[in-house]
Amino acid sequence: MEAVKKQLAWYADSLEAVLASYLPQCPLPEDQVAQAMGYSLLGGGKRIRGALVLAFYHLYHEETEAALPYAGALEMIHAFSLIHDDLPCMDDDDLRRGKPSCHKAFGEAQALLAGDALLSLAFDIMTEPQHSRFFPPERVLQAVNRLGRATGLGGMIGGQAIDLAQEGKDTPAELLERMHKLKTGALLAVAAEIGCILAGADREAGQAAVEYAAHVGFAFQIMDDILDITGDTALLGKPVGSDEANGKTTYVSLYGLDAARNEVERLNAKAKKALDKLPGDTRFLKGLADLLVCRQS
Amino acid sequence: MEAVKKQLAWYADSLEAVLASYLPQCPLPEDQVAQAMGYSLLGGGKRIRGALVLAFYHLYHEETEAALPYAGALEMIHAFSLIHDDLPCMDDDDLRRGKPSCHKAFGEAQALLAGDALLSLAFDIMTEPQHSRFFPPERVLQAVNRLGRATGLGGMIGGQAIDLAQEGKDTPAELLERMHKLKTGALLAVAAEIGCILAGADREAGQAAVEYAAHVGFAFQIMDDILDITGDTALLGKPVGSDEANGKTTYVSLYGLDAARNEVERLNAKAKKALDKLPGDTRFLKGLADLLVCRQS
Repeated sequence: MEAVKKQLAWYADSLEAVLASYLPQCPLPEDQVAQAMGYSLLGGGKRIRGALVLAFYHLYHEETEAALPYAGALEMIHAFSLIHDDLPCMDDDDLRRGKPSCHKAFGEAQALLAGDALLSLAFDIMTEPQHSRFFPPERVLQAVNRLGRATGLGGMIGGQAIDLAQEGKDTPAELLERMHKLKTGALLAVAAEIGCILAGADREAGQAAVEYAAHVGFAFQIMDDILDITGDTALLGKPVGSDEANGKTTYVSLYGLDAARNEVERLNAKAKKALDKLPGDTRFLKGLADLLVCRQS
Repeated sequence: MEAVKKQLAWYADSLEAVLASYLPQCPLPEDQVAQAMGYSLLGGGKRIRGALVLAFYHLYHEETEAALPYAGALEMIHAFSLIHDDLPCMDDDDLRRGKPSCHKAFGEAQALLAGDALLSLAFDIMTEPQHSRFFPPERVLQAVNRLGRATGLGGMIGGQAIDLAQEGKDTPAELLERMHKLKTGALLAVAAEIGCILAGADREAGQAAVEYAAHVGFAFQIMDDILDITGDTALLGKPVGSDEANGKTTYVSLYGLDAARNEVERLNAKAKKALDKLPGDTRFLKGLADLLVCRQS
């Protein structure tokens, strides 16, 4: 597990170094929005989505530098989604990773625009000639297409829309699964897929990568529900029992703790099995699944 | 002028017909967001941005059908910007084109997500294989890159950020010009440029197209300021004198009415002159400049 953590930290550090360089530099009144973008994009996070791009690319190529802008684009989409999720009209969260959320630090209008600008920047960065010149243009086009779809109503935003529509309602199991798969799963899956697309992997390998990431993402969500009941408030950094208090339908409230734990195990095993269809050394990706799924916080 | 209006209406109609087909069809709880997307994207508007893509493409190719998805993408970006602009934390507008604004009709969270989803959809539609297969992939990549940049902090969103930062402040002339050029000009210019890029036009032609659209866009903005003073409330559909009442710095407040009128004429002439560098029949584009600049409302 230590090797996995080390490798993940290495990916995160490589990304951290380039992400700042992708941000617009402008000593002008729009600075507040530029600063809000940096505030939310830089300085922290596990960079799981970026790491997935790099790790799957790495199965095919020793050198991962050319894939960094694409890993960065995934992190921009993730940062945009967190900023907009925290806004008063959405989850109305004042804190994010222990710091004031973007709109608390910069104001609502600035946070709205910072999110919009990060979303646009992701597509700008992916197609910037300096970045795309290392790949056949067809691969870059496919990566952009997959990311656009995974972000939109057929993906992450669609998951948020279901979440919104179900607020204060009982959610049927099927819809809960669909929501999780879209809300978190879509971006994780497309991160893995983009790593494969850029690497020139065949279709079957790309599908296996998507399977892996989707299973890990869903297991991660169920683990969230489990930790909300069995977790340690101090480790989690948030009070346990909040789902129940809010009357939220979760995997645990639907099936119980034991079934939820079994499902996490089953999904983790399926995720690892999917990796068997991929070439190269998949140890990091197997360990990453364990790390994300068997966590205490 | 009638011929220009007819051609513009033809472009708008062609777009109207395809835009609905680009929207996601999902009879599911996220429907509210899907409906909000359709509400704001469909049924109205002059489709200037879409028409610019088609008209510049048409200078090179008789048949413009292949460019329609790209014209549609421009209209999606425009619709997204209007939805987010109207939100309470931005301009807080209850009405848009005489109908309730998106958040008034569907709720703030739904409007936020509808805007985000339209922005993502633009990039999805541009790179969808069914649409991109008619063009060399390099051209599509370039079009995506230009649109990403023109939308983000270096373009439209940057203009909104300046506007936000200058609220209630005196705006120096240079900054006012920069704001207008970004806020409206960037998207108009990139629409013209994308038409040229897809058509396979050379660099010089693309630059002339950008020049044309940027001049027209700036003249259009100044005309807005002029009409706010000299316009007819009934024709405009909004009260005249609102800029002055709100203490807003405008081109007219800086330079006076006569100078503003002269500048509009000068920009219109420059816009038309830029068209001389382009091949084909530019009569529609010349007429479009007149139509947009010499308007009464």
